[in-house]
Parts: sequence; structure tokens; C-alpha cells
Amino acid sequence: MPAQHHIEALITMLGPKGATTDPTDIAPHIKEWRGKYFGQTSLMVMPDSTVEAAQVVRYCNEHKIALVPQGGNTGVVGGSLPGLNGRDEVLISTKRMNSNIRVDAADYSVTVDAGCTVAAIQDAAKAANRLFPLSLASEGSCTAGGVVSTNAGGVHVVRYGTTRALTIGIEAILPDGEIYDSLSSLRKNNTGYALDQLFIGAEGTLGLVTKVAFRLFPPELERRTYWLAVDSPSDALELLASARTETADRVSVFEILPHAGLELVLTHIPGTINPLSKPYPWYILMEVATSSPDSGLRTKLEEWVASNMENHLIQDGAEAQSETQAKAFWKLRESMSEAQKHGGGSIKHDIAVPVSHVPAFITEATQTLEAAYPGCRVTPFGHLGDGNLHFNVLQPENANKEEFLAHWDSMNRLVHDIVTSHKGSISAEHGIGTMKKEELARLKNPAALTTMRCIKKALDPNNIMNPGVLFL
Amino acid sequence: MPAQHHIEALITMLGPKGATTDPTDIAPHIKEWRGKYFGQTSLMVMPDSTVEAAQVVRYCNEHKIALVPQGGNTGVVGGSLPGLNGRDEVLISTKRMNSNIRVDAADYSVTVDAGCTVAAIQDAAKAANRLFPLSLASEGSCTAGGVVSTNAGGVHVVRYGTTRALTIGIEAILPDGEIYDSLSSLRKNNTGYALDQLFIGAEGTLGLVTKVAFRLFPPELERRTYWLAVDSPSDALELLASARTETADRVSVFEILPHAGLELVLTHIPGTINPLSKPYPWYILMEVATSSPDSGLRTKLEEWVASNMENHLIQDGAEAQSETQAKAFWKLRESMSEAQKHGGGSIKHDIAVPVSHVPAFITEATQTLEAAYPGCRVTPFGHLGDGNLHFNVLQPENANKEEFLAHWDSMNRLVHDIVTSHKGSISAEHGIGTMKKEELARLKNPAALTTMRCIKKALDPNNIMNPGVLFL
Repeated sequence: MPAQHHIEALITMLGPKGATTDPTDIAPHIKEWRGKYFGQTSLMVMPDSTVEAAQVVRYCNEHKIALVPQGGNTGVVGGSLPGLNGRDEVLISTKRMNSNIRVDAADYSVTVDAGCTVAAIQDAAKAANRLFPLSLASEGSCTAGGVVSTNAGGVHVVRYGTTRALTIGIEAILPDGEIYDSLSSLRKNNTGYALDQLFIGAEGTLGLVTKVAFRLFPPELERRTYWLAVDSPSDALELLASARTETADRVSVFEILPHAGLELVLTHIPGTINPLSKPYPWYILMEVATSSPDSGLRTKLEEWVASNMENHLIQDGAEAQSETQAKAFWKLRESMSEAQKHGGGSIKHDIAVPVSHVPAFITEATQTLEAAYPGCRVTPFGHLGDGNLHFNVLQPENANKEEFLAHWDSMNRLVHDIVTSHKGSISAEHGIGTMKKEELARLKNPAALTTMRCIKKALDPNNIMNPGVLFL
Repeated sequence: MPAQHHIEALITMLGPKGATTDPTDIAPHIKEWRGKYFGQTSLMVMPDSTVEAAQVVRYCNEHKIALVPQGGNTGVVGGSLPGLNGRDEVLISTKRMNSNIRVDAADYSVTVDAGCTVAAIQDAAKAANRLFPLSLASEGSCTAGGVVSTNAGGVHVVRYGTTRALTIGIEAILPDGEIYDSLSSLRKNNTGYALDQLFIGAEGTLGLVTKVAFRLFPPELERRTYWLAVDSPSDALELLASARTETADRVSVFEILPHAGLELVLTHIPGTINPLSKPYPWYILMEVATSSPDSGLRTKLEEWVASNMENHLIQDGAEAQSETQAKAFWKLRESMSEAQKHGGGSIKHDIAVPVSHVPAFITEATQTLEAAYPGCRVTPFGHLGDGNLHFNVLQPENANKEEFLAHWDSMNRLVHDIVTSHKGSISAEHGIGTMKKEELARLKNPAALTTMRCIKKALDPNNIMNPGVLFL
């Protein structure tokens, strides 16, 4: 732990509201929410302004005290917990920097403090008749600073992009305590290196994000939700490509689920209903939305469904006839992770390949895994629209759960090798954190890895910003 | 110039097609197309592959020989010319790396060699029923590597973003000659720092871009072009915000022109016609496009125009009734620069402010300039949809052109100060190059500037990649 006089200096600097050593206050901040990672720290600081945050970082840099930034603590890769593996780190939380959400409706932008939750930003945008399209399960807790630092994705990436595409300005504290100010809602700016972009997805290793300007969009005033049955991922891909053109690029959700996954949901999750009368190999949850209602979208979609049933790309399908029915379709998708728990142990992969490679990737990875782990049940699902699958592999029926889960790392390597051969990503959504440092070192383009280290060393020579993540 | 034995070594390495010292071959590559900058070099190298390019860069790094990368040589800020200010630099052209354009229609992506022109990429996309939306005056000559290195914009940014938004993968040669390979059409990837983003807009100072993967979009199969008269930029802004929502975000062009600018066009450019019967203070050229024709867009737009004429945001307007008429509207916009030449000397600014700040910025900058330079004619026009104006200032009628143009730097500083007070950009489209290094040093956030230098030094310690640009 940092020397007692440093702890005292930081408490004096920030006052009683801005720093705590009380284990009860600290407890919820050092535990990963699923209970997979447990950290430790003797001090949590909670600056309430950019200036205070800068003072903290400057002091810590001068005294070589490591800092771990934390937003809503909703990550799953051990990226925002201090003291993992016995490291000596102070937790810096943005929880008190959450009072400003300024929507500029004419500008289609919103400027927020790093500690504001995604849900609060969504609400503020909605109140101004605008859409903040970032939408993910943790939106009630995760923060602007957190989604920027991890480049969060969610279900609307196919249409609106990841957090990177939504972010148009950043203020951050650099590792030396200087304030990097590029906080503006500018749409065009060619004045040197895109440093904003470097902070996005850096997992807090290059500085502490304190304020963010995000892009907003016209509201989704008409939304059509479909549950479609298809024969194969390859047919699904063809439908996605055609839907993008036919709907004037208004596909905002395009998720794929395998039959076996749906079966688990229908069996184990109360209140779920099969929208179709018989089983099919694969299902798609598609949403198309527009800010311009009653402008012929429904007719277009009806024609699109009809013509694709005629050419046998769609085997069967249902359009949600009400908000309630749309929610019922969504429940099938959202229950996938929960339902799989009833199938026993499950080894997970958060991967992406180019969208057009998804069918080949699924075939190749499934064959490889079924050969290597006989009886395992490959159950990939997720964001086909982004080439991003939750590539989950269930244990064989009646196998021993612990024995199966012991294959976690070796199976990950097998899958990641295939991903890499498709020029894919071994972490599409959740980042590297502590969890995937070895795999990153093994698979990342060596020149890219060297460049990353080089930048980290140049900007943070004392290695004080989240030193335990990304790099081995 | 580099020592003769280095020149010979590079010629031996690349063969006669890959290197030249012939002044006639070199001539077109050392002159800026408007004749504003003249460079010099004793050697131009033209590798025809990534491997060859890497060999060149590695050799030059080992021997501390500076390289200036060049694509189509269409830039206007002296960013791609070797030997400016007597510097000793070898020109490295990507002109021979232009054979591969691979469209993946299902993936909505295209992967190209750095030397391919934007027009060639547009054509290849179109042939596959896709849209590559980057569109700018120099598209017949400018290259993939060039538009990435300068983060080119153009007229469709309001809908599709700048080159940054279109770029999804990059291959580049790092300053030490290593090959950075992130060439993939991945939509989601959270595996460390966004190094691709660092190359975009770096003006060749961090490496040589050799291949690029770009995003494609559904084709624009129905396009509606409007010429609208408005009272003020503030009314124009309100119309833009409403058009985005009412058209389901399908506004792909939104350009503003002042009355005085149109007058110059109508007076001096043969074949131009005023689409409206009487003059108004400001005009808008708007285009709305969709990949889903006959889906009610026309009706929606008719209603939108009618209701905005009723509430007096639109004073008068015309919809192009044919492709010919649409071209005539475009000619008015595209002739603005040419027409202004007939008004005498003109001092230019390539600036952007947040979209919602445009009206206040125009008022403030106009008042300041009219006070400082009595009689000057402020004639801003351009991409209101992106907050990016060609903020041109014409000399007073009958003034001496040279005397007026002598105010270039001092007027730039005045305007740039106002831009900066709006958190705007002093180079929205064209980059810094050699031209704006002083202004960048004067106005960029100091922490950002320090960080830029720090990254440059870390990645290019021998300062061999385009050393004359960006930094003083």
C-alpha cells in the first residue's frame, strides 16, 4: 500500500467526501460484479472536478503511485479493479463527477461528465427529442468515462457504431497531471494526431477521461421488430446485406441465435414463448427503426419479407404486433446467457470476424472444437450485424462441469487461432483487462504491440495509469 | 541531397521502374497544383509492394534519410512536397501500389492499395451495387493513402463522416520499417490502442500507409436536390436539424451560400442561372438520398418544405426536376471559389466550429473583420452540415489586391482566435502541412501538442517521416 503520508496527503487534498480508507465504502468497488475478480486497496479517491482529478494524478505521478480508474465497475475482464495479483494501487473513481449533462439539440450532441451513466445520457437525449444510441445491459450503471475507455458496443452497433463512432470530443487528465482538452462537438478537425481516439479503448492506461462530447441522432419514432427463421448463417448474412439496402440502412439490430440456444431458453426461462410453430436451424432478431414514421417503411418491409420467403432465404417469420410482443422476442435473445447456465459449464469467447466471414468461421470453429472436445455443444449467438459473436461452448451432456471448464484456456487458444486466421478480434466488446493479456501478447501483430508499448512508455513513463492491464 | 551512394543503393533496391533521378519524371511531383509551393528532390522512389516499401523505409531509417510520402499530390498546405525550405528529403510515391481494389459486397467493405484513386474506388463500389461515399473535387487524382493520411472530408460528411469514419483497417510501414498490419474489415475490435486512428490524419509523419479497408454503404438510388432560400444561418441551422429527423437522417448534402457569393457566380460564371426569381440573404443546397426508392421520401419532403414555408424558415425554394437541373444547382455551389477570383484578392480560412455555433461565429467574425479591415467583403460558404465553412474574405471593391493580401497572416490570426473561442478547428479539411505549423503551435491545447510531439519522438526517433510538417 502507498506510504501512510501519501494517503494522508491525498485525503487532505480532496477532503472527507473525496477520499476514503473505509473498507465498507471501498468494498463494492473492488469486486467484479459476477464475483470472478477480487481486488484490494487501502484508498479510494473520488475527485469531484477536473481540477481535483488533475491534482490527484499529478501528485501520484510525482510519487510514482499507481492509479486504477473506475467508472460503473461493470467490466468483465478485470480492467477496473485495483490490487489484482497483489498490486499496490489507489482506486480513482469518477462517481462524483456526474452532475453535467448538456444536450445541444440543434447540434445533435451531448456533453457530459465522465461519471454520468449511459442511462442518464439516454434520458437527457430523449427529453430533447434526440437519440443516444448506445444501449447495453449495464446501461443503468456504466458511465461515460467507462464506455469511452472500453469502447463499448452493445446491440445498435450495426447502425450507429461503437462508442468510438459516437465520441466527438474528450477531456482527460494525462499521466503527468496535465489537462488534455479536446472537449468540443466538432465534426471536422484536421489539426494533428487524433489523440481522442487514443483514449478511446485504452482502458485507462493513458489517462483519466473526465468529460466527453457524444454525437446524438434523430429519435427512433417507428420501430419494427422481426423474428425470422433461416437455414444457415450464410442465409442470414445475405438477408442482412439486402435489408440494409432495402430499408435505406435503417437496420438497427441484427442478432443471430442457433436452434439449440432457443431450446435452452424455452426449456429453462419462465414465460418465454416460441414465436414460430416449428423449429428451424437458426433465428434472427431484426429491428428496423426510423425517425420519420408513416413513411412507407412497413410496406417496404412486408414486401422484403415476402420476396425473401419466396426465394427461401426466410423460412418463416413473425413481426411483433405490439410493444409487448417485441419485448417477448427480445426476451428470447436476452435470456441466452442465463439459459446456457442450465446446460452446465460454458466456455466463452468474445470474438469478431469480418461480417462476411461469420458463416465460414462458425463452420470451421465448430468442426475444430467438436473434434478436439467430443460432445461439446457449440452455441454461438449475438451481433451478426457487426461480425461479433458470443461464441459459447457448452459442456457435453452429463459431463463433469469442472473437468470441462479446465479446458478454458486451451479452448480459447484454439478458437482465437481461428479468429486470427480470419483477421478477427479476440476481444470484440469487453477489452483486454487483466484477463486477456497473454492472448494479446501471443496474437497481436508484433509491430502493433511494440507501437502500443512505445506509446504507453512515452506518455506514462512512470507507469502509474492502470499498470496491470493490457501489457504483460 | 542524400549521399550519392545512398541514392544508388535505393535505385539498386527498387530497379529502374521503382526509382528515378530524372528531373522530368520528378517535376510534376514537386509542385503544388495551384503553384503555391515548389519543392525539390534528387530522388523519387516508387515501391510497388508493401515489402518493397518496407525495405525503403528501413534503409532510410538506418541511414537517417528523410522521406516525404505522396499520394495524388492534391493537397493545398504543402504537406506532400519534398525539399520545401531547402530540406533534404526523398520523395516516396505510392503511384505504383494501385492494382488491388477488392469489394466484399456482403461485408459492405472494400480493401485497396494505397495508390488507388478515390474515383476508382467509387467505381468499383458502384459496380457491386454499393456506395463509397467519399466525394471531393480531387477524387480523380487523390488516393486512398492520401485521403487516410489527411482525413479528407468532402460534401457527404454530414451523413457519412470523414475518411476517419469510413476507414476500418490499415496496413502501414512504421518509421523503423516494420509492417503494421491491421488490415481487416472488422467492425468491432477492442484489443488495445486504436493505432489505425493515429495514422489517419497524421500527414505521413508516423508511417507510410500501404493498404486500407473502407466501409461501404447501400447505393443512393433516389436522390432529391433542393435549392432553398433562407433569411439567416440560424434559420438554416434549424432547417438542418429538422430535415435530419424528418428524412430519417438521409440528408447527404447541406451547403450554405451567401447572397453576395451567388451574385459573383451569376455575374462571372457562364451558364449559371438563378433558380429563384428574386434575391434572398442566404441559400442552401440540400440533397437527400435513399437506397430504397419509391418509399415515400418525395411526399415527406414536399410536406417538409411546405410546412417550413408556412412557418417562414424557408423563404422560397426549388426542387431539381431532373439530373440536369440538379447539376445546375451544384454548379452554383461549385463555382464559388472560381467566381470569387473575379472579386479580387481573397483571404481564405478552412475552419470549423460546432454546427450549432455557426450562426454566432459568422456574426462575430464578420463584425470583427469589418471593423479591422473596413470595406472587406466576408463571403463564408460551405458545409454547414459539418460546421465547416470556407470562410473567405474578399478585398474591398477597387482596393489594391497585393496590399489586401498582405494582411493574410494577421487576418488568419484574428479569425483563428474567434474559431478557438468557439472550440473550433483552424483546419477542418486540409490539415496543417507546412502552411499552418505556426498557428497550430500558437493555438492547440498545450497538453495535446506536447503529447503529439511525445508520440512522434517515440515512434520516429530519427525523425525521418515527413519531418517538415505539423511541428515547428
